[in-house]
Amino acid sequence: MRLTRYFLPVLKENPAEAQIVSHRLMLRAGMIKQASAGIYSWLPLGFKVLRKIENIVHEEQMRAGHIPMLMPTLQSADLWRESGRYDDYGEEMLRITDRHGRDMLYGPTNEELITDIFRAHVSSYRDLPLTLYHIQWKFRDEIRPRFGVMRGREFLMKDGYNFDLTKEDALHAYNRHLVSYLRTYERMGLQAIPMRADSGPIGGDDTHEFLVLAETGESEVFYDSAVTDIQLGEREIDYDDVDQCRAVMEEFTALYARTDETHDEAKFNEIPEERRRSARGIEVGQIFYFGTKYSAAMGATVQGPDGKPVEVHMGSHGIGVSRLLGAIIEASHDDNGIIWPEGVTPFHAGIVNLKQGDAEADAACEAIYAAMTAVGLEPLYDDREERAGAKFATMDLIGLPWRITVGPRGLKNGVVELTSRRTGENEELPPEEAVQRLAAIYEGHMVRGI
Amino acid sequence: MRLTRYFLPVLKENPAEAQIVSHRLMLRAGMIKQASAGIYSWLPLGFKVLRKIENIVHEEQMRAGHIPMLMPTLQSADLWRESGRYDDYGEEMLRITDRHGRDMLYGPTNEELITDIFRAHVSSYRDLPLTLYHIQWKFRDEIRPRFGVMRGREFLMKDGYNFDLTKEDALHAYNRHLVSYLRTYERMGLQAIPMRADSGPIGGDDTHEFLVLAETGESEVFYDSAVTDIQLGEREIDYDDVDQCRAVMEEFTALYARTDETHDEAKFNEIPEERRRSARGIEVGQIFYFGTKYSAAMGATVQGPDGKPVEVHMGSHGIGVSRLLGAIIEASHDDNGIIWPEGVTPFHAGIVNLKQGDAEADAACEAIYAAMTAVGLEPLYDDREERAGAKFATMDLIGLPWRITVGPRGLKNGVVELTSRRTGENEELPPEEAVQRLAAIYEGHMVRGI
Repeated sequence: MRLTRYFLPVLKENPAEAQIVSHRLMLRAGMIKQASAGIYSWLPLGFKVLRKIENIVHEEQMRAGHIPMLMPTLQSADLWRESGRYDDYGEEMLRITDRHGRDMLYGPTNEELITDIFRAHVSSYRDLPLTLYHIQWKFRDEIRPRFGVMRGREFLMKDGYNFDLTKEDALHAYNRHLVSYLRTYERMGLQAIPMRADSGPIGGDDTHEFLVLAETGESEVFYDSAVTDIQLGEREIDYDDVDQCRAVMEEFTALYARTDETHDEAKFNEIPEERRRSARGIEVGQIFYFGTKYSAAMGATVQGPDGKPVEVHMGSHGIGVSRLLGAIIEASHDDNGIIWPEGVTPFHAGIVNLKQGDAEADAACEAIYAAMTAVGLEPLYDDREERAGAKFATMDLIGLPWRITVGPRGLKNGVVELTSRRTGENEELPPEEAVQRLAAIYEGHMVRGI
Repeated sequence: MRLTRYFLPVLKENPAEAQIVSHRLMLRAGMIKQASAGIYSWLPLGFKVLRKIENIVHEEQMRAGHIPMLMPTLQSADLWRESGRYDDYGEEMLRITDRHGRDMLYGPTNEELITDIFRAHVSSYRDLPLTLYHIQWKFRDEIRPRFGVMRGREFLMKDGYNFDLTKEDALHAYNRHLVSYLRTYERMGLQAIPMRADSGPIGGDDTHEFLVLAETGESEVFYDSAVTDIQLGEREIDYDDVDQCRAVMEEFTALYARTDETHDEAKFNEIPEERRRSARGIEVGQIFYFGTKYSAAMGATVQGPDGKPVEVHMGSHGIGVSRLLGAIIEASHDDNGIIWPEGVTPFHAGIVNLKQGDAEADAACEAIYAAMTAVGLEPLYDDREERAGAKFATMDLIGLPWRITVGPRGLKNGVVELTSRRTGENEELPPEEAVQRLAAIYEGHMVRGI
């Protein structure tokens, strides 16, 4: 993309309404614009990152054998009356009346709707196990929306639902989700720690929240510092392997790590003192096993192997897709702006032309642009007639992890500069080598964009 | 995908509520399920097609230089009061009150919101031309939703907006959209004829609707039969070339083709009698030039080259993404089910194992599955323990354009059967050749799926 043909309305000033750094930087980098309280338009740069994050979630869900579909944003109130949650949900549920006077709502979650689909179409244990998920906009009418996309009212969420014949099978689904979530976050450059949490209005006993440590987090968390040393890394996972998934789950949840809702001071004090940590965390996902709560209430049964009806065991599993952008920025920025991890960056590298209009510099930039595109990398070429300082400031603000700087002086020696946004390290090398270097850096980090 | 691990709830019976063939077939093929009146869940097969159609629209929009973003589903009523449309829109607009008593609405379109973004961020003629678009769910509270996704209440639409300094520039944007829409529909295997139409509540003088001819269309159309002979085909388009875009626009709109709203009997009768046609059509898109209607009402101006403020010229351009599934099926089906065009098929080919459990047949199917996957093709492998007739019926119903049939008898001679869903033609050939054949068929029809 050439910047002169793009729409990147960066702001010079810090917006007064933004209290936390991710909100401030998303506004300043031209990623979002508030449409009304807690509701945002995703400007082109923001939408590109959102879509990459969505695609990582899709890829990892499908890798785990979960099946994508899409439920609508608006739901009938009748289904929620069946489960008994219509009245429970309180004022955070946006209630709507259509022209015929029918009660509807903007879905905050989809246990009822997915259970309705299941009971209409699945009748035999032979069709199990089954995990369906979707990524769709949700609405929660927060009384005081704040922190930009971190606590908005309209937000994008992945929610998935498993249907299993037995509790044992459902717990495998639980473990499978836990493992696939770990991989999902790691691909985004995030460390999200599973912590035992409270189930809230979803219900159920087994639940973990995934928390990203950050000073601006809304939750207080308590953990054994050794938990931050565990990584999924490159290990191969067979999501059908019950024992392997359980072992990974146990490895990641054995050490003490809890939110304040489930914090147990006595157990916490059993940790060696030098490893005891209390901090703040941003919740980016949660998994639940809740057994037959919805299947019993809504009559979702299958015929078991012995011919008798069995209420299916269920769980639900969510990732806060739009809030992840905020969480990633909270975890990865500096005074000059955002620093995108390679897995989610909107463009793979910026090309800065130090002397726009200079025939040689322009040609070199075009050649790098073409070479990057040819190997599947997406450059953002700052082809504006601007001074170098302004171009560097824009690139730093929007946070592309790599920058290629092209100027007449370097070109005389046959070199351009490749700069890491994270470390600030510079290297002079011939343009073709800079592109090869980028291709190597991004191997294993390629995600379909928009 | 293996069918035993998928969720494909096909129906044997014709659902009573479906009045038209596309609605009937989408229900029967397990693509959608009604959630409430005019609101559908997209089951996995339906979602896969929806996503492919969405991706084709994205690819062609970006090819034309238009920039993707995403606006929210809910909007503040205040913006609509500024444009004067809040009261105009009538009961089809779903009006919502939030917990603080603020008036909101579920966006049926986005002229106001995009103009608000524009006026906040663009101040100079140097930032023009600019075309922004998004693909987002809309809601129109139809008094009598019907025909499945063809006239639903919650529907997915691409809407794009151009901002230009002069009427002339805006007319180029209009032509550019017309050409890019032609390519978009052709990639989906559809002939959509641009017809002069009425502008309705969007306003403006210049507007064309794109109509797919089908008996079940909601619009009566009148046209010169020669118009159906024109195709964009493989010709190279330079979307920056004003003259080329105008020439293509003129070529496709020179012949008489109008909806009943703008039909002119006298002009129609000037067509040679044997070429006069009246028929029914399904509207799958519409483009508008409406000048300064919104920029004047909402104060969207830029500083012109002479330093004086200029109200920008705008147009808006829509494609009915979710309704396209219905339109494609109306245009492409037979008594046995859907026949997907190669560009939008959910899976590239079905693999039917005639003797599940037979070691040789199973191994051959697995090998074909792996070979297809290796060349980027996505197979649906019917690995159920079912008789051949049931497997063929399912494949015919869901409409994959190609089927590979694998059985012990053929394998003895080293061959499998490759069958075209459209023509029913069969060919026996070695498995590797069948895969090569498919790869060749799909060259130029590859679209990112989910």
